[in-house]
Amino acid sequence: MGHPHLDVRRAVRAALTEVPDGSTVLVACSGGADSLSLAAATAWVAARSGGRLRAGGVCVDHGLQPGSAERARATAAALSRLGLDPVATVHVNASRGPDGPEGNARAARYAALTAAADRAGACVVLLGHTLDDQAETVLLGLARGSGPRSLSGMAERSGAFRRPLLGLRRSVVRAALPAGLEAWDDPHNEDAAYARARVRHRVLPVLEAELGPGVAEALARTADLARADADALDAQAAAVDTLAVAELAVLPRAVRWRVLRRAAIAAGSPATDLTAAHVAAVDTLVTAWRGQIGVDLPGALRATRAEGALHFTPRKGTEAG
Amino acid sequence: MGHPHLDVRRAVRAALTEVPDGSTVLVACSGGADSLSLAAATAWVAARSGGRLRAGGVCVDHGLQPGSAERARATAAALSRLGLDPVATVHVNASRGPDGPEGNARAARYAALTAAADRAGACVVLLGHTLDDQAETVLLGLARGSGPRSLSGMAERSGAFRRPLLGLRRSVVRAALPAGLEAWDDPHNEDAAYARARVRHRVLPVLEAELGPGVAEALARTADLARADADALDAQAAAVDTLAVAELAVLPRAVRWRVLRRAAIAAGSPATDLTAAHVAAVDTLVTAWRGQIGVDLPGALRATRAEGALHFTPRKGTEAG
Repeated sequence: MGHPHLDVRRAVRAALTEVPDGSTVLVACSGGADSLSLAAATAWVAARSGGRLRAGGVCVDHGLQPGSAERARATAAALSRLGLDPVATVHVNASRGPDGPEGNARAARYAALTAAADRAGACVVLLGHTLDDQAETVLLGLARGSGPRSLSGMAERSGAFRRPLLGLRRSVVRAALPAGLEAWDDPHNEDAAYARARVRHRVLPVLEAELGPGVAEALARTADLARADADALDAQAAAVDTLAVAELAVLPRAVRWRVLRRAAIAAGSPATDLTAAHVAAVDTLVTAWRGQIGVDLPGALRATRAEGALHFTPRKGTEAG
Repeated sequence: MGHPHLDVRRAVRAALTEVPDGSTVLVACSGGADSLSLAAATAWVAARSGGRLRAGGVCVDHGLQPGSAERARATAAALSRLGLDPVATVHVNASRGPDGPEGNARAARYAALTAAADRAGACVVLLGHTLDDQAETVLLGLARGSGPRSLSGMAERSGAFRRPLLGLRRSVVRAALPAGLEAWDDPHNEDAAYARARVRHRVLPVLEAELGPGVAEALARTADLARADADALDAQAAAVDTLAVAELAVLPRAVRWRVLRRAAIAAGSPATDLTAAHVAAVDTLVTAWRGQIGVDLPGALRATRAEGALHFTPRKGTEAG
């Protein structure tokens, strides 16, 4: 596989070319092999930047497993030994939230990382997701079946976050881990109770065996193309500010469905419960109108058509659902 | 699974609601269980249409396997016994063409079916593809990694073709096959030398086991949503008739990439060789201009930027590539 440490350093440098001179960047590190490898490469790049960049680290302690605080301390010490400075540890508590356990943990983690960046005066936070993580994310999105947006995976740039390793296989990133750095394996990654672990250990290997070794790369390309498509159509839908049937009817179906979905969510339908089938049913009020009384939606809403426009209103006389 | 024959008949009726009274429709039949089941349901629906519909059949003989002509005769006889009339057999020879063996066979089959419909005065040709075929198509497209269009699978309607069974599982369609009808199993469907057979027998079962029994349905929903997205963006790109950099630069990336891809193909780059990476490289002439000499493309073309516009011209002094 060539020179993995060169590949990882090159990826880090490319992600930091647009960072202004004198900036501080932070590497988010779980203690796992991928983010430790990223931390080592970032320390290397910053040390040879001629003072242009300062690189710090931030360890995340989710407090979900026994010994996690101690592990966070050991990871912080490893980051300091790599030359990262400042190194902070953030404790994330994600017991509650609207997005399910995994989604809540993710939201809490990103909020904590953003706060850590603010405290350190950092303009960028680097994350260690690899091409394999991206491929797994696409497969998980595919299994949900909620369309191109759910296939669009993780972006290389999102706010202050950068994912420099998204174009590199996990095997390359791990091969670049300097000798003597001890990585921690998150048991969740091996636990078949988690869909992502099953995708990693059982689904992707079968896809690669049956469809060819380029499958992970193909999935990552799909993510990139699907994200561009979804971004364009989401922006077009966001610019539509009418629910008049005559104006909705002439939109491409892909845009109209997004307008209807946005309107339902704005009226209070929970995004996680609103399926493509719901949106398709609302669409029949526009495209197959024959006097329907309306379409019931999650959140005790009903979509109706009256006076040439759609309306999303609370359902009367029924329980929430 | 309830009453599979009712499900299949309902799907056929739904596909034929918009067919004018007095029409002839044809069922394309390979002799396999899916299309035989479709033929039986269509014969049933037509017989009970009060003379509104006439249903015929067309058997396709690819001549690729020993005994295929005899099998086509047996299938034609079975269709006649079901009450389909007229029943024709078309012989397809797809040894040549630009799309590879599978693509050539498909193109030749659709051309032969269209000609058969013309001869029979039929306005519609029904095809027996099921939800499982759609899910397999999405997975094959995913492995190619050429984006949402390659995930968009088969359309329910395309020209004169209709695919009424695209919402039904193969198991349902086969369970609806009337007793006494003998279906033929295409050995290609079982032959692991074919990617589709590997997807059917090895990939999809693993996805269903690891990610849940709804995966095939999720893949089919993905196809539907991806097709709507790709249709909308393809149409937007087709409406762009300039290669002026200033106008390209303000387009959403998803539209601009399609414009560039269309322009390269129009200039002679073979669609099958032109990858997303080629298009991304051409895009840098618009979005990351620093005086590049140009981007080499398949078909011995070069994309260049001059006088504020892109140009796709034959490469000089190099072999075709």
